Order: sequence, then structure tokens, then C-alpha cells
Amino acid sequence: MEVTRSNFKDNLNKVYEAIEESDFLAIDGEFSGISDGPSVSALTNGFDTPEERYQKLKKHSMDFLLFQFGLCTFKYDHTEEKYIMKSFNFYIFPKPFNRSSPDVKFVCQSSSIDFLANQGFDFNKVFRNGIPYLNQEEERQLREQYDEKRSQANGAGSLSYISPNATKCPVTIPEDQKKFIEKVVEQIEDLLKNEENESLELEPCTGLVSEITHLLKKKNLFWPYRIGGVIKKKKLFTWERYIVISKVNEEERKRREQQKQAKEQEELNDAVGFSRVIHAIANSGKLVIGHNMLLDVMHTIHQFYCPLPDVTFFRFNLFSYYFVSRLLDTKLMASTQPFKEIINNTSLAELEKRLKEVPFSSPKVESADGFPSYDTASEQLHEAGYDAYITGLCFISMANFLGSFLSPPKNHVSARSKLIEPFFNKYSLCCRTLSETRDS
Amino acid sequence: MEVTRSNFKDNLNKVYEAIEESDFLAIDGEFSGISDGPSVSALTNGFDTPEERYQKLKKHSMDFLLFQFGLCTFKYDHTEEKYIMKSFNFYIFPKPFNRSSPDVKFVCQSSSIDFLANQGFDFNKVFRNGIPYLNQEEERQLREQYDEKRSQANGAGSLSYISPNATKCPVTIPEDQKKFIEKVVEQIEDLLKNEENESLELEPCTGLVSEITHLLKKKNLFWPYRIGGVIKKKKLFTWERYIVISKVNEEERKRREQQKQAKEQEELNDAVGFSRVIHAIANSGKLVIGHNMLLDVMHTIHQFYCPLPDVTFFRFNLFSYYFVSRLLDTKLMASTQPFKEIINNTSLAELEKRLKEVPFSSPKVESADGFPSYDTASEQLHEAGYDAYITGLCFISMANFLGSFLSPPKNHVSARSKLIEPFFNKYSLCCRTLSETRDS
Repeated sequence: MEVTRSNFKDNLNKVYEAIEESDFLAIDGEFSGISDGPSVSALTNGFDTPEERYQKLKKHSMDFLLFQFGLCTFKYDHTEEKYIMKSFNFYIFPKPFNRSSPDVKFVCQSSSIDFLANQGFDFNKVFRNGIPYLNQEEERQLREQYDEKRSQANGAGSLSYISPNATKCPVTIPEDQKKFIEKVVEQIEDLLKNEENESLELEPCTGLVSEITHLLKKKNLFWPYRIGGVIKKKKLFTWERYIVISKVNEEERKRREQQKQAKEQEELNDAVGFSRVIHAIANSGKLVIGHNMLLDVMHTIHQFYCPLPDVTFFRFNLFSYYFVSRLLDTKLMASTQPFKEIINNTSLAELEKRLKEVPFSSPKVESADGFPSYDTASEQLHEAGYDAYITGLCFISMANFLGSFLSPPKNHVSARSKLIEPFFNKYSLCCRTLSETRDS
Repeated sequence: MEVTRSNFKDNLNKVYEAIEESDFLAIDGEFSGISDGPSVSALTNGFDTPEERYQKLKKHSMDFLLFQFGLCTFKYDHTEEKYIMKSFNFYIFPKPFNRSSPDVKFVCQSSSIDFLANQGFDFNKVFRNGIPYLNQEEERQLREQYDEKRSQANGAGSLSYISPNATKCPVTIPEDQKKFIEKVVEQIEDLLKNEENESLELEPCTGLVSEITHLLKKKNLFWPYRIGGVIKKKKLFTWERYIVISKVNEEERKRREQQKQAKEQEELNDAVGFSRVIHAIANSGKLVIGHNMLLDVMHTIHQFYCPLPDVTFFRFNLFSYYFVSRLLDTKLMASTQPFKEIINNTSLAELEKRLKEVPFSSPKVESADGFPSYDTASEQLHEAGYDAYITGLCFISMANFLGSFLSPPKNHVSARSKLIEPFFNKYSLCCRTLSETRDS
């Protein structure tokens, strides 16, 4: 299922449900580039320690944009003895949320862009209709902005029902208007005392809104919520402004407050955008599978959580801290015993083919109702959703193969089995060249 | 006319012709971003000296990509008293030419990308079908590569008609094959001496190509052009390889040489790509018009010529040195006497509207045959070709207005008139905000 900004909100619950019900998840990312320094092959040569690789990628790969994210959820149906999968292909773009929101700069590498262009990648979908996102710090700041605005609206700071111009200071009241304005203030005071009257229409007083406001403020009378009053401006043909002051009862006030808060929450949610999917994955505690996934995981943390720390990720297994506790790299798995001896080529496309043949067997996987099905015969490699799907297939085949060593042998090995634990939280550091990066 | 990689070569002569016959040219660029440092408004505030502005833009704007270039040529028809215009809208992308060509990295600014996306900008056209380009240094390097290859082919370095594997050294000839190989060499020597025979078919000698080559080389006999011989490999059902050695006569040799050079030149031209249009503009010596054009000119030089120098551009008028000798900024012109007093808003869209009214008059401009016409009523602002067109219209109106001060007044003031010289090579430094940058 293709998910863009247009249909993101409508499908978010579907995504949550798919994650929640799943046995494991597979992910894959497409990026606007790989290396802004050394050549890609130098960046990812096979001689690095995990820590060296981490530092290199952190230094040279994080300014690129993860602009397509594939998520494929797999749920085992014990009765039918098959997996039901739901595949999502998210387009992602840091569309500025408003004038004060972060104006993200990201780098594009022409070889990577050209590679994706040749695969038919739809850049218009990314840039015109990508889902926005915020990292944790940006989300915190935006939340703070809303909180500040709200506390101002409730407190002494602003007069939210009055035009912004009305708060301009200092206000000096013209001598010839003083009397008129004082009368107005008296009228308002009467209105507040008098329980029968609900509103009050002032005489035309063009240009005096700010003066009246000022005076009310001085008398500590004009906090719309506190006194339950509201000023409305009416424009007639004459351009005179009749100021209507009406009481707002407590119920009405609460209703408006709630409406406003709900709207703010929705705006906030819209801005957090795709990060909500990442949070859901992280919070689910599910096993997350990827193929040659180090770069994908690093980008995911960098883009949707926080800048990557300098400390030794591998020693402290910090991915668990920031993202999910159980990650499994199918490329690493295929390069490890007992697979190492029987699998020559661990690129995703080749691995998928190899795992269809003896001693392995193709897993039984079907698309859930309402989800498009992929055909592994007509390859759509390098679309993140498809790559995630293939990665999931590879994992199932390899996991099931481990079951053949049990006595009695088992056909189905679940994502919770102890048999796959040795492969957790280890990453392939295999050499990646440009096309191999994506074929990897 | 929309020009992409697909139709660039077919239309290049049309572009050259349009430039050559024109009275003046208008240009405009669209970029992947404006500022990678300060906010756009801080970067382009109105208080900079020209030199400060230049340094700021050089520091914070040059990592973005100029990915759409508008060129509109204007030619005055004295009989019909109207301008004939030809408009080109080029999509530009640094597609890597081969494995050793520069892998350009460029920055995208999400606010700029979002702005263009909202204007319906077609990013797929840029990334899938943009015209490549090289700057002068890259072109020089590529030319050098070709020259080196050619001198190797002509000299002692390589054996260009033999498979790459054949040059592997050292070659040790198996004892049991020595006799056979020596016989072959003798046969070749005979062929060269004998004027009647044109070619020689050897006995099957699978796998011995490199050994034979080695021996011929040792005997200083095997330089294809020098001895006029060539080895061809024939594959039969048996996979045996019959090596055919034929003389190449001088005529044939030259023809092949020329074919090869022509092919190389074409490859080189393809790689230089869009830079050829910029060179044609520069070499034409025509007046080049732009609106708020400083950034456009800086990007043009940076992207298609060389990194911008640190020295004071304005003092030495280095744009003339690098690009064209006469540039005219219509925003600067509109902000200068006698226009300053009668033109309030110098943004491109507003200027174009203002110049339709008294005391100005709309110029008579028509599209040339076979070129699409623009309708200024249904605005297509922010497509570079259209913006260049509008810029040209503004220039014509303002130039003609200057003619009204002459006695007797003139309706048409040409691009060669002394009246416009005061506006040459001065740039608007007006404040630019994000949308104004493009509206500017």
C-alpha cells in the first residue's frame, strides 16, 4: 500500500493495527545518497570494525534524506499454516509545517538519484506529497510553543479574541475620546453585574478598540475567559465598527477551549507525521528485520529521533535504547553458520532466489485482504516496500530451515523462537558498492 | 520549448540559431534551495554592500543546484515593428557520465522544494531526464582522458583491438605450446611480407590469444596500426577460437581512426551537455537580461564554469570576465531613475502588470513559428522559461519608455542603444524572502 501525505491520516490506524497484530516486521529505506565524502566503496569496505563503520556512516551518510520507507508486517496464521503480510510504502519529505518550523536541508548524490531514476522512482511523489516528520527535539519545541500560546490565552498575556493590533502599546487615549471610552467601560461593568443581559452593543467607535481594551485591561476587567466576555467587530457599509460585548457562559467557554485543544493536538500530530509510525514500531517491541540494515537503522534514529551519539553504539547496543530491542539483519544471518556454507551470494535478490531451492523452501505468504500483493517473479526491487517484503520472505525461509535441525524437525520456526536469538542485534558490514548498496 | 536530455541534441542548433540572431537574451534559474546558513531574509537583507552580498551568497548558496534554466531570445523585426521571441526551458541534472565522472552532491532546502512543488514543478523531469553538464575543469579532465587513451592506442602502450585480458602480464608460455605459437608468429611474419595475401586464419588456439600477443609484442611486430594487422576472435559451436589476422590498409586505418575520434568527440559533447548553451550565450556577446539576477549569474558561473573566486567581483566586474560583458538587471533598472518614481513594486509579477499601464505600453512580442506562446494573462510564473520571457517584456517596455525623452521621441529603443548603458552590470540587492526570491 502506497502511503503519502494525502492518505496518511486515513491509513494510520491500519498501520498501527498491522504492527500490533504482527509476529515480526521487515523494514527498508531508500536514500537521497550514500556518501558525501569517500567513494561509496571506500566508505563501506569490508575491513572496518563495527565501530569504525558506525563512525564513517555517521560522518558521511547522515546528511542525506531517507525519503522512502518500506514496512512489511508478517502475522502467522496457525490454522492455515501461512503468513499474512501487509506491506506499506511510505513517501517521506520534511515539508515545513509553518513559518517557524525547521527548514531542513538535505544532500542529494547524483549517482544515487540517477540510480533511483533508472528504477522509475517517483520523485514528484516524495517532494509534492511526502509525509512530514519531526524528531523528538522538534516535537518537544512545537509542543512547547503550543503550551506557551495556551497559557498566554488563559492568562494575562494576550487577548485572544481581539485583533493582534489591539495589543499594541503604549496606548494613549485622546483627550476628546476619554469621556466616551469611560462610558463604554461603565457599560461593560454594568453588563457584568447584571445577570439578565447577555450582550451589549456599543456605539460606533472606529479605531477605539485598542483604547477600550487598554482601559479594560487597566481595570483588570478584560480577560475574556475570566470575565466571560468577548468583543466582536462588525463591519458595516460605513466601515464603522460596532463592538459587541457578550458574556460567554462557562459551558461555552469550555467547549471552545476543548475544540481549540483538539485542533492543536491534531496540528501537532500532523507535524509529527511519519515519526508516529516509527514510534509505533519502537513501542511494539516486535522483532524488526532488515537486509544489510545498519544504514537504515542509523538513518531512522537520526531522522526521527535525535542526532546519533558519538559513543560506541555496538558496545552498548544503543539501537535498543533508541529504537527497538530486537533487530535482525538477514544479510548477517545468511553469512553466518549454518547458512554461510550453502549461500554464496547474499545480495537481497540473489538470496531470495537461493532460498527458494533445496535445502530451503519458499514460505507460504499471502497478502492480507485489501493489500496489494507482490509478485516475486516480476521483480520490483528498490521500492522500499517490496524490498522489505523480500527481506521478510528470506527471514522466514532461513528461520524455518533452522527448525530442520530439531528433533523432531519443525516446519515452522516463529519470530519468538530461541533458535534465532543468536542473530539478534548484529549487523552485516559487507562491502557495499553503489548498486550493491541497494541490491545488498 | 521544453528541453530535456532526450531532445537536447536535436534542438541544440535551434538554440544556437536563436541566440545568434537575437538582439538580446533573457535568462532565469530555478534552484534546489537558497541558503544553507542564515535564513533567506537574513542572507539577503537590504543593508549589504554588493561585496558583502556576493560573499554571503558565495558562502551559503552555491551548494544548491540550478536545475531549471530559462532562456528567452528576442529579435526585433523592423518591418513589422515587433519582437519575435523564442523561449527555452531547460531541465538540468548532473547525471554521472561514466564510472570515473564526478559524482556531484547538491543540497536541497525543504522550503524551496516545497515552494516549487506547490507550483507544480516536475522533479521527475529534472532527475530522470535532466541535461548533464561539466564545468571547465571537468571538461578539461575528460578531454585529457580521451587524449591519453588515444595516444596509448597509437603508441606502444595498449593493444586496442585485443580483449583487455590480453594485456595481462607477465605471460609465461607453456612448454608444450611454444612450438605452435612460434609457428603462428612465423605465419604472421609471412603475411606481412607477402603483398598478395590480405588475411590469415590461424588454427584453433583456445586460450592462447594472450600468449601470441605477448610474443608478437616481444618481436616488436604487434602494433595494430603500425603493422596494419588485426586479430579477430571467432567463436564456433566448439568454443574454439580461430584467430584471424588481417592487414588493415592505410585508408581503412584512417577511416576507423576518424570514426573513433568522432565518437569520442560526440561523447565529450554529450558530457559537456548544457554547458554548451552557456558557452554559446557567453560567446555571443549579446546583452543578457535578468530580474534580480545576481544569484542566477553566480550559479551559472559556479555550475558551468568554475568555483567563484574570492576577489571582489564588483570592483573588477568579473562577471564580464567569466560570463558575458553586458548584463542588465530589470529589478535594478526599475528601481533607478526615471522609473523609481513611477514604479512602486518591483517584484517580477507586479512590474509586468505596472508596465502595461500609462506612461508605459505593452511591447509587441510574438512567438516564433514552432515555438509555444506564453499567455501573460494565465500566469505561469516560476517556470524559468516563462520568467525569462516576462523579464524580457519588462526590459522592452522600460527601454522604450526611455525613448519618450528623446526629441523627437522614439517608440522603439534597441538593446544596442546608448540610453540603456547606464544600467549595465549593476545588480539589485533588494531584500529577498523565500517567495519573493522567486517573485522578485
